[in-house]
Amino acid sequence: METFAPTERTTLKRLAKRGNFDRHVVYGILDEAFICHVGFIVEGRPVVIPTAYGRVGDRFYLHGSAANRMLRTAETGVDICVTVTLVDGLVLARSAFHHSINYRSVVIFGRALVVEDSREKFEALRSFTQHVVPNRWSDVREPTDSELKATIVLYLELMEVSAKVRTGPPIDDEEDYAMPVWAGEIPLRLVAGVPIPDPRLAEGIDPPQYVSDYSRTVPDGDPT
Amino acid sequence: METFAPTERTTLKRLAKRGNFDRHVVYGILDEAFICHVGFIVEGRPVVIPTAYGRVGDRFYLHGSAANRMLRTAETGVDICVTVTLVDGLVLARSAFHHSINYRSVVIFGRALVVEDSREKFEALRSFTQHVVPNRWSDVREPTDSELKATIVLYLELMEVSAKVRTGPPIDDEEDYAMPVWAGEIPLRLVAGVPIPDPRLAEGIDPPQYVSDYSRTVPDGDPT
Repeated sequence: METFAPTERTTLKRLAKRGNFDRHVVYGILDEAFICHVGFIVEGRPVVIPTAYGRVGDRFYLHGSAANRMLRTAETGVDICVTVTLVDGLVLARSAFHHSINYRSVVIFGRALVVEDSREKFEALRSFTQHVVPNRWSDVREPTDSELKATIVLYLELMEVSAKVRTGPPIDDEEDYAMPVWAGEIPLRLVAGVPIPDPRLAEGIDPPQYVSDYSRTVPDGDPT
Repeated sequence: METFAPTERTTLKRLAKRGNFDRHVVYGILDEAFICHVGFIVEGRPVVIPTAYGRVGDRFYLHGSAANRMLRTAETGVDICVTVTLVDGLVLARSAFHHSINYRSVVIFGRALVVEDSREKFEALRSFTQHVVPNRWSDVREPTDSELKATIVLYLELMEVSAKVRTGPPIDDEEDYAMPVWAGEIPLRLVAGVPIPDPRLAEGIDPPQYVSDYSRTVPDGDPT
């Protein structure tokens, strides 16, 4: 299916035209970003933490201390909400009221479960590294058995998912267009700077191309 | 007080050295970022949405549809968790296991309440615009009474607050330092591009300096 099925929770009540269930759009956002904000409930109260993530097909992976903290709240699976947000620009209108932000976000609802299978766990960890720094995996020491055991990996099926996107110029009240004030968009993007070598890096090791040319822009929301 | 008082929820269980209650650090992060992720509970399940925010002293403000959705869940105040995250760089270690991210984040726990006072509401809206685009407010049409009525503003007292910060190079296992692989940091920052004028902008209106020189870097975490 090319789209995720809308549910009551993922159907926008307001500004429905910004809602999007297209898999291509959802995957594109999940692949370009690498930090998500995970919400879960601890003793009846919401907690939101930022963490990195990976994806293999329709499995979304979380790991490490984040997983740990979430897992303390439930024995078998835990209801979470994962939100991924890319900020594309600031929208400056002529009135304060119509200022806005151009963004692309994905919200995923679901129940996170522990990855028990060691092969899947390994592949999930590979997906983290490859997602944050494509091509890195083959250069580094792979996780040992004890490192694998020290890491909790959770998965969430991409089932109840929606994207929300705003693009374009400000929409002002008709009578405000005559105001002699600049209006438009300030585009924003995440840019990589010059790589900083580890102070303990041996002489003569140059950064590989995937480091020196690092960019988050993903040419296509490929579903793999 | 120069620091926020730690509580059980804001005291880190792991990696306690990354925890920080310094007001200067907290304000600095809140002032440099402009998007937060707000977590709240709807029908027993967590929901996380991205939204812009403002701050005046120790009052943190949320508004609009975000507030609306949250408010549907409670009649008098709603428990929320607000998380603000700045990503400063990717930390490439020699082992997959020790890869990390340099970041600064703030987590705020509290009960969000509706701003009823019209003067405070006006000032809160001013703080939103000024926070996202400093110096913008004096150029735009201020909110009308009906716009003010159409906007719900929530406030949250900055009481139960903590920051978490990671900086610096990777920390590898001692035996991995001999590996002939590049290690270090890829710095990341949010950069403004060339402003895009509204297609309906009248001829001869140039972008003001606060648009053409737009930058999120705040020189100092001033508590105002």
